[in-house]
Amino acid sequence: MTRPSAVPPPVTAVLDASSRWLPARMGAVEDVLRDQVGGQGEPLGADAAATLAAGGKRLRPMLVLLCAGEQGGDAALRAAAAIELVHMATLVHDDVLDQAPLRRGVPTVAATSGRARALATGDLLLSRAFALLAEAGDGRSVQLLADASVALARGELAQRHDAFDLSISERRYLDRCRLKTATLFECACLLGHDDEHLRRFGAEVGLAFQLLDDVLDVSGPPERTGKARGTDLLDGTVTLPLILAIGSDPGIAEVDLQGLDTESAAALCDRIAATGALEEVRARALAMVAAGKRELQSSGFAPEQQQLLALVADGVVQRYS
Amino acid sequence: MTRPSAVPPPVTAVLDASSRWLPARMGAVEDVLRDQVGGQGEPLGADAAATLAAGGKRLRPMLVLLCAGEQGGDAALRAAAAIELVHMATLVHDDVLDQAPLRRGVPTVAATSGRARALATGDLLLSRAFALLAEAGDGRSVQLLADASVALARGELAQRHDAFDLSISERRYLDRCRLKTATLFECACLLGHDDEHLRRFGAEVGLAFQLLDDVLDVSGPPERTGKARGTDLLDGTVTLPLILAIGSDPGIAEVDLQGLDTESAAALCDRIAATGALEEVRARALAMVAAGKRELQSSGFAPEQQQLLALVADGVVQRYS
Repeated sequence: MTRPSAVPPPVTAVLDASSRWLPARMGAVEDVLRDQVGGQGEPLGADAAATLAAGGKRLRPMLVLLCAGEQGGDAALRAAAAIELVHMATLVHDDVLDQAPLRRGVPTVAATSGRARALATGDLLLSRAFALLAEAGDGRSVQLLADASVALARGELAQRHDAFDLSISERRYLDRCRLKTATLFECACLLGHDDEHLRRFGAEVGLAFQLLDDVLDVSGPPERTGKARGTDLLDGTVTLPLILAIGSDPGIAEVDLQGLDTESAAALCDRIAATGALEEVRARALAMVAAGKRELQSSGFAPEQQQLLALVADGVVQRYS
Repeated sequence: MTRPSAVPPPVTAVLDASSRWLPARMGAVEDVLRDQVGGQGEPLGADAAATLAAGGKRLRPMLVLLCAGEQGGDAALRAAAAIELVHMATLVHDDVLDQAPLRRGVPTVAATSGRARALATGDLLLSRAFALLAEAGDGRSVQLLADASVALARGELAQRHDAFDLSISERRYLDRCRLKTATLFECACLLGHDDEHLRRFGAEVGLAFQLLDDVLDVSGPPERTGKARGTDLLDGTVTLPLILAIGSDPGIAEVDLQGLDTESAAALCDRIAATGALEEVRARALAMVAAGKRELQSSGFAPEQQQLLALVADGVVQRYS
């Protein structure tokens, strides 16, 4: 299992293109994050700092800062840090359930410190996000983030509710992806700047991100994704590649997901791929990214800001190309 | 295992003494809670509604309403509901770990719907609490509740960190109780009314509540507490009765908590009780309640309001007498 580099190429492209101001602002977000997870007493310090150090793409904070623009002040920094705290909280809580030994190539809190501490660490990261925004009296941001956080939990509940159900519709799948993933991207844009075009940009890019993630689960390769192919299938999570594959190969609907093991899950991945479903899902994701970019053009945003946001959107795609 | 009645006697006493206004206000809080947990999609509806219906004493919302007083408006109602949502979230998350089959006599979310849904339900209840306050633009309340929620998680982390460590000091135990329990009582009072005496009242009563809870874990009887004696000991949670007992019977410090089973835990409870530690902890809790009531007298609050709050404080003690 390879350890992803701390800053993946697409993000680097955005940072390069905005070297005048964005890298310094992203550094300031890291400082806020370190402040927030530090100074909470030794046990948390270690666990949360490890989660923080494990990195990640920081896509959501970057969207906040880019939408706020070069002149965005401390409010944008705080919002950028707060949205990453919420995202980190969901990752730590996911690990409570999955008992995944590694995330982003480093041991998870659940693996290092046990489920109990991982659960409390997630609760703490989530609470800290709201405390950070509330301290600054930023009511609008609290509301946006609280609503997004509600959506995340609802998406998770929907996913668990639909688990192992091969009859769920494409529409239900998309609704779940909006709740689970797109809403937080949308929220990132709105935290940066209150604009309907930016909101739609975030929603499209976020949805594309989830679709492409679901393609990767089927396509692998594990050396690049850091997890076995078919992990979603083993969890009973029915995703768009599977839904579309059933359309062309109805026999797939007879598979008992609950009876899968690693080997038969990989075989099912091959069967899904053979239907051409992965190409279709990729194409749909690209169409979403394109729609998102069109929203930018309608936004009246400064060309440089549009260009940087478009680079983020491209980055989401490139990671999976 | 007996199922506690929905409204325990001490709470009834407060409602009786304030029949002119409090029962109607508490009913309005239930309406807000039902609104908040309903309408979130079917899967949540069922789980969260079950948690809600399982009742509980609603001590924290009652403190909010009493501190806000008869003229407290919608802000007090929302704050009362929000603090109960946070409290419910912690209970649902506790059940993720403990895999307790029952809480308050009814099946837990974790038992009914599995750990994954319980985890997401807890996240949702917590997020909803902040969304509820943020919608109304109540920044001060968001801040108070977020800080309290951070403290809860820190208390939980401290407890897990200290688990099975018989050398922890009384001071460390009290610090943990403040984080885990007293802060939310304190927060309830401050949400109702910004007053330093009320804050201290809440802190004293909350700390007493935790001390008496820890006495009950040792004393039982299980028919009244709804759980086996020594549940904390089996979890490795070192509480004040145990710490004081070691002072008079140092041999207890040699016990290997990790090797306890239900039977040896009950025997250890007897050994702790034999030292007189339970009486001492009870006496300290009563002293805290008395100190809390003195704060009320210094508060300059209307006598009726003082009297009602004193009844809540007495209720905390009576439940355990």
